[in-house]
Amino acid sequence: MKFCSHCGSSDLNTKIPPGDTAPRRVCASCGAVFYENPKIVAGCILEWRDKILLCKRAIEPRIGLWTVPAGFMENGESVIEAAAREAWEEAGAKSGDLSLHTIYNLKHLDQVYIIYRGSLDGGRFRPGHETLEAGLCGEADIPWDSIAFTVVREALELYFADRSRRRFTLHEGDIDRDGGEQLRIVRY
Amino acid sequence: MKFCSHCGSSDLNTKIPPGDTAPRRVCASCGAVFYENPKIVAGCILEWRDKILLCKRAIEPRIGLWTVPAGFMENGESVIEAAAREAWEEAGAKSGDLSLHTIYNLKHLDQVYIIYRGSLDGGRFRPGHETLEAGLCGEADIPWDSIAFTVVREALELYFADRSRRRFTLHEGDIDRDGGEQLRIVRY
Repeated sequence: MKFCSHCGSSDLNTKIPPGDTAPRRVCASCGAVFYENPKIVAGCILEWRDKILLCKRAIEPRIGLWTVPAGFMENGESVIEAAAREAWEEAGAKSGDLSLHTIYNLKHLDQVYIIYRGSLDGGRFRPGHETLEAGLCGEADIPWDSIAFTVVREALELYFADRSRRRFTLHEGDIDRDGGEQLRIVRY
Repeated sequence: MKFCSHCGSSDLNTKIPPGDTAPRRVCASCGAVFYENPKIVAGCILEWRDKILLCKRAIEPRIGLWTVPAGFMENGESVIEAAAREAWEEAGAKSGDLSLHTIYNLKHLDQVYIIYRGSLDGGRFRPGHETLEAGLCGEADIPWDSIAFTVVREALELYFADRSRRRFTLHEGDIDRDGGEQLRIVRY
């Protein structure tokens, strides 16, 4: 942010406004305060018989790697609607019976990842323009070394663990940088 | 938003960028696209013996009405940390054993309200600068007609219903405008 979006001034400072607790971008000209808050990423693990739907990413980041349908929640929708919309946009997939599976805080990215699990309507799908390829994948065939995101690998591991004991619950956790480049996963 | 925060131009349009699905603010001068996404509000119902902590708001909106500690989640924290921080800032309250209670989409406000329940450490509290007054309140004494927000009234109703049957679960729902000024509540 180089210019104030209210008055166009370039005289922006980073400071803690009076009565506030965190540093914000503040316009020295008009006094506008700009807040930045975490975004929600909504996604879903969709089941068809004993397989789940995976998508190979056609866009950065992690182009060419595999993930589940997921993306930024939009204004005016619910989290579950966002998850269903992403399944439709990225994989032409209609979802059913979505229920909460994981809520993970990606603290280093200022994201909260909310993943549902549900059924893939009719087992039908068709890659969208952000997807190179989509496919149904059994547990034995999950490309664990080619999963695009740590949070998605975590959600898939928890999903198969739940499934093997025939008891699905909501899982919560944090993913954060561990000093360097490594990510640290904390399951609550 | 009147000026592009990247280049300072006032030549902003609202349009659907190529490959996108929703209208965005786009700078005609430098091409920057500005996304707006829902914000998370995190809060908590804190218990001390058979009472819960309520706060009388010292700030708008709904100044003078009662609520539970809650506020916008900040970058760099988890949802549960945000809920605990709000309890500390608004009511000088230390929280313990927080667990998820409600997740409600406030679709008309582009907010996702995530409320935990937990214990009020030592039964101690002290109003913060956004709080006129704080107090412990039994179920029979809840000021139902003076609760600041529909989503908080809903969370409190669900809390006491759970408590009376001695079984706490996670509740999900939507709150939205019903055409006019009325709010419509949908429990999943």
